[in-house]
Amino acid sequence: MKKLINAADTVVDDALNGLAAAHPGLRVSGRVVYRAAGPRPGKVGLVSGGGSGHEPLHAGFVGHGMLDAACPGEIFTSPVPDQIVEATHGADGGAGVLHIVKNYTGDVLNFELAAELAEDVEVVAVLVDDDVAVQDSLYTAGRRGTGATLFVEKIAGALAEEGAPLTAVAAAAGAVNERSRSFGVALTSCTTPAAGKPTFDLPDSDVELGIGIHGEPGRARVPLVSARELAGVAMEAVHGDLPLQGDLLVMVNGMGGTPLMELYVVFAEVASFVKGKGARVTRSLVGNYVTSLDMQGFSVTVCRLDDELTRLWDAPVETPALRWGR
Amino acid sequence: MKKLINAADTVVDDALNGLAAAHPGLRVSGRVVYRAAGPRPGKVGLVSGGGSGHEPLHAGFVGHGMLDAACPGEIFTSPVPDQIVEATHGADGGAGVLHIVKNYTGDVLNFELAAELAEDVEVVAVLVDDDVAVQDSLYTAGRRGTGATLFVEKIAGALAEEGAPLTAVAAAAGAVNERSRSFGVALTSCTTPAAGKPTFDLPDSDVELGIGIHGEPGRARVPLVSARELAGVAMEAVHGDLPLQGDLLVMVNGMGGTPLMELYVVFAEVASFVKGKGARVTRSLVGNYVTSLDMQGFSVTVCRLDDELTRLWDAPVETPALRWGR
Repeated sequence: MKKLINAADTVVDDALNGLAAAHPGLRVSGRVVYRAAGPRPGKVGLVSGGGSGHEPLHAGFVGHGMLDAACPGEIFTSPVPDQIVEATHGADGGAGVLHIVKNYTGDVLNFELAAELAEDVEVVAVLVDDDVAVQDSLYTAGRRGTGATLFVEKIAGALAEEGAPLTAVAAAAGAVNERSRSFGVALTSCTTPAAGKPTFDLPDSDVELGIGIHGEPGRARVPLVSARELAGVAMEAVHGDLPLQGDLLVMVNGMGGTPLMELYVVFAEVASFVKGKGARVTRSLVGNYVTSLDMQGFSVTVCRLDDELTRLWDAPVETPALRWGR
Repeated sequence: MKKLINAADTVVDDALNGLAAAHPGLRVSGRVVYRAAGPRPGKVGLVSGGGSGHEPLHAGFVGHGMLDAACPGEIFTSPVPDQIVEATHGADGGAGVLHIVKNYTGDVLNFELAAELAEDVEVVAVLVDDDVAVQDSLYTAGRRGTGATLFVEKIAGALAEEGAPLTAVAAAAGAVNERSRSFGVALTSCTTPAAGKPTFDLPDSDVELGIGIHGEPGRARVPLVSARELAGVAMEAVHGDLPLQGDLLVMVNGMGGTPLMELYVVFAEVASFVKGKGARVTRSLVGNYVTSLDMQGFSVTVCRLDDELTRLWDAPVETPALRWGR
């Protein structure tokens, strides 16, 4: 294992120190990342979190127009309830707090418990479960939450920034999840610093179709084929679950170890696929947003937009990993 | 070799197709990437380019506040003179064109020839040679140009956007290069699609200090040590060449295959080193900006800021890879 770390057991805190040093707009307190300016009175607070190893998710999305606080757990490990309670209080501007929770059993339980413990704060949770690859999986009952988390955080964050009430922000978050689907492909495993060896074995000639962001098994293991064919498999899976139509927000996301050049090769194929179905890519993202440590591979996430969702997507955002229009 | 490509000989064009599909603000014509809006009359045009494989450099920096056109060559191969001539004409708004050239022999010769061939356009070239690792190297007489290219493109681009004349834009570009230094560390080799195997051999236990962005040899090969020690080696090399003082713009750049989490671990150490020298990190970037395909590793680039350079760094920019304030 070759990693740029000081020690396996300090990597999360060391990376948070770097995040704080690089971004004066953030405040890191223990294992919670806040906006340095604190909660805005009267604004719904947005809190998300989950295991580390998926950077920039979630701490890289804290800032104006997106999250108020993020709780990074240990690598691939849910944040603990106390941490989420602390984030919930720190994000509360008096208008309640939305928990954005990826559908993994540990995350769901810990966020539920935290919502109960933060009893003086009104909390609503939205579950993200966009990954169409498998119904149940390692760590998950039902679908896994992956790339759509970013879409939910951005769009709900924009609405909260406008002063919408908690019910409306939660409804928008739920709508984005309902309208979004994802599918991932791994070319290699990831390696956690603690384990020091690949999480799973994948022969040099094969890829895993429908990979999870912790290396959970997908639908099939097949020989490596062209980017066009792999993009086709991913898009057929998405399209088969929620037909592509109208205006689409499309993210081609790198798993952490894949060069940007290759992600653009995949994006070209995804855009071509969408066009072939008579739909339109009207907004897009290409890059590393919801990663799995050093895994090579990609995921594609598609959201059916309407005018209001497009407007909220375009709204100003200022976070370490997404920044525009302000 | 596992890559998300259709074929080794189409990867550059396939990626450019993806870039065009993802970014309606760009226009790709053959092997030149322009702003879709075309050159602004009276504005100095900025053209850069070089071998592909360093994405998002350079095409990812085309847009408001940065480049007017970029010429991607084949992977790790200079763009050809005709391509640069075409870009120079396409970027010319009547106020002349600045060529921003990384100091590699092929790039230098081809940009020089192109400047002669584009005889109806006033062209000034600035060479970027910020890498302190080695004096001469594979492909280069003198120092190599690496991370400072981004700083030069951003700051000169901001000045050009304000309507400054060619002499002033060129002077600012030169000043940024003079005030910038870089040093890179590789944990692994990169693999070009055409070769299909690693460019160089690096044992599992070793790293290459002073690596070039095409895998050129650096200063030494040593056992892998902690992020703190590696950051220390890189920063001592930078500091030894241009002492750290005052306000600094610092980029911790990933080589393409390194997770963001690890880059933040390195950034924390770099920031700590700077503080120890009594200087201040006042602006920063952490991410994949000047890459070397799938190489794992990082580079650090430091620029001594003053008030005017800080103002130009902060000016609005809207490109695929850098976007803020507009």
